[in-house]
Amino acid sequence: MMESSSPLPLPARVQLLLPEWMQHFPDPHTVCASDEDKVALAIELSRRNVDAGSGGPFGAIVFDAEGRIVAAGVNRVMPQHTSLAHAENIAFMLAQQRLHSARINAALAAPVTLATSSQPCCQCYGAAVWAGIDRLLIGARAEDVMALTPFDEGPLPADWIGELQRRGIQVVRDLHRQAACEVLRAYGESGPRY
Amino acid sequence: MMESSSPLPLPARVQLLLPEWMQHFPDPHTVCASDEDKVALAIELSRRNVDAGSGGPFGAIVFDAEGRIVAAGVNRVMPQHTSLAHAENIAFMLAQQRLHSARINAALAAPVTLATSSQPCCQCYGAAVWAGIDRLLIGARAEDVMALTPFDEGPLPADWIGELQRRGIQVVRDLHRQAACEVLRAYGESGPRY
Repeated sequence: MMESSSPLPLPARVQLLLPEWMQHFPDPHTVCASDEDKVALAIELSRRNVDAGSGGPFGAIVFDAEGRIVAAGVNRVMPQHTSLAHAENIAFMLAQQRLHSARINAALAAPVTLATSSQPCCQCYGAAVWAGIDRLLIGARAEDVMALTPFDEGPLPADWIGELQRRGIQVVRDLHRQAACEVLRAYGESGPRY
Repeated sequence: MMESSSPLPLPARVQLLLPEWMQHFPDPHTVCASDEDKVALAIELSRRNVDAGSGGPFGAIVFDAEGRIVAAGVNRVMPQHTSLAHAENIAFMLAQQRLHSARINAALAAPVTLATSSQPCCQCYGAAVWAGIDRLLIGARAEDVMALTPFDEGPLPADWIGELQRRGIQVVRDLHRQAACEVLRAYGESGPRY
């Protein structure tokens, strides 16, 4: 592939696809009024992603101010050969491309919320700074992910919550933390495939 | 678009495209032997991206151990409505999807290098941790970006270089720093479009 004598044209298109089962879940009519309900749905995505063998044990959803789903994502790193294909990043990109807006809350009334089954890693943390969200709801903590799965969470600023709050992003942790940990534990114990 | 009575199906596909002028530049036969040459080419991408009006003043290239281009990216945030579409992220994703490997250096002999016209922001910093590179070559510093353009670089770990080095990623800064700054300055002074 990399012969210098006749190299291929350089690649010019990135594509990321959700798994087929997400054509049927979540229902686009879903309304999640509470913070707990929003994270519970993200955790349910993480569980179904593991059960389907379609990626790692992580789910994330962008909600509008009324609790309606703008876009939902799951981890697709291994199936799509893309280290950026974490659940949060996919949800951000799908929401932005749907709305034709590089900042989600430039196109929707505040507050825009990201609910995620586990604390964002260093990569999705940085993406959350620019994505245009007003609230970040988290299930499992980074230490849960690292205790229960092979995944590293990477280096964060020491005051990562404060850095988000100073940029207008409220952080709420430990929502259904145990339920999120159950998915992580089951994944870790079953022999990770992704 | 967001009517709860009859919502659209949830989005399921992310697509990111390079600008058309990149069909002709850089030449896939290019070999950049030195660190300086690698960053110079990333800076040239940043310059052409501004001149073409196809995104912000940033370019990045993944090189293999022989100095051949695996994938090249430019900033596409505003044209593609995607806050993740920074030059570094696009180069990472294009390289990984070309190689069918979520870690670039799992598919290529070491060292794999990312050359970028400016220091990665918080988002691309985190992505660099997982992308599978061995070396990170940087033109302009974060303080240059923030002094010369409207862009913020976001929160990083205090010892961001050390965190990368502890994960096996060597960092080299200030390669053609002034040339990189010239592109940033011209962009900032012309009235940013992206």
